[in-house]
Amino acid sequence: MLDVLLAANKKFVGEGCGVDASKYPRLHLAVLACMDARLVGLLEPALGLSCGDAIIIKNAGNVLDEGALRSLVVAVYQLGVDEIIVIGHSDCGMAGLDVEELRRRMLARGVSDRVLESLNLTAWTGGFEEEEENVRRVVEKIVEHPLLPRDVKVHGLLMETGTGRVRVLVYGKETGGKKV
Amino acid sequence: MLDVLLAANKKFVGEGCGVDASKYPRLHLAVLACMDARLVGLLEPALGLSCGDAIIIKNAGNVLDEGALRSLVVAVYQLGVDEIIVIGHSDCGMAGLDVEELRRRMLARGVSDRVLESLNLTAWTGGFEEEEENVRRVVEKIVEHPLLPRDVKVHGLLMETGTGRVRVLVYGKETGGKKV
Repeated sequence: MLDVLLAANKKFVGEGCGVDASKYPRLHLAVLACMDARLVGLLEPALGLSCGDAIIIKNAGNVLDEGALRSLVVAVYQLGVDEIIVIGHSDCGMAGLDVEELRRRMLARGVSDRVLESLNLTAWTGGFEEEEENVRRVVEKIVEHPLLPRDVKVHGLLMETGTGRVRVLVYGKETGGKKV
Repeated sequence: MLDVLLAANKKFVGEGCGVDASKYPRLHLAVLACMDARLVGLLEPALGLSCGDAIIIKNAGNVLDEGALRSLVVAVYQLGVDEIIVIGHSDCGMAGLDVEELRRRMLARGVSDRVLESLNLTAWTGGFEEEEENVRRVVEKIVEHPLLPRDVKVHGLLMETGTGRVRVLVYGKETGGKKV
């Protein structure tokens, strides 16, 4: 399957980002989104984002896991980000994730009992009940996080996967929880 | 700044993914890429990826942090992924990341000494010396990881940020390290 992608890449004649583009995002913006396949070719154009505009962090369920936190810390302190958008989407696979089914599948495919027992799989996978509530909670966690500074604006959005339309859930909340 | 994006979204008339698109990626593929702003509008078309084709996971430096591992576990066991591409890019901000500078900036912007001391910042931020070596190491970590099954193919690529051209570093390595 990689060969198909490599053939596409050979034919690709990109315009690139232009000479002024750098690792510092032009809009001083980071977007925390979901890894969902339906956001490919949709998320960026639907938000009007072009090459060089914004940092994009993606994981299962657009949650603030250690990787997202680490990435936001680098984005804010090293890359000049002062605004963060958390964006969920409709029909997210992490809403109502069946952790017992996941556990059975992992065991059936050879993951050892001992490795699985060392993990609180429910907490670790970070599933949630509902997409909108998850976005609000992730925004709160970012706003209050002691590793982030006080002067970052955080927004919460929800995207309809079928159309790319977004709805604002949280607008411009400033970070500044307890820092100790 | 959010208002500009919302205005763009109002004007956006996306084609969406079509009726057959679901959370299950059509190519059974997950891509682990960097959050770099210059990959916006570049990574997906340069690999010929369209809406619904692949899971996209993004973090600082395309490393296997807890968030990426969690996302890959969900992608493989719950969403039918059997092939993983780790893709680095030229001029990555995580190559040669200055952790002491990061620490000074965090302290200067109000992060508490006590919070910072509780963290091994160098290990936590996951910086590396060089992009290509990093991709090879991340592929190895995935291939050997005890939470992943034996029958997943892992590739390692490097993208030139200016042109979108990719080079293959690791081709189709099968997972199957020690599972205990």
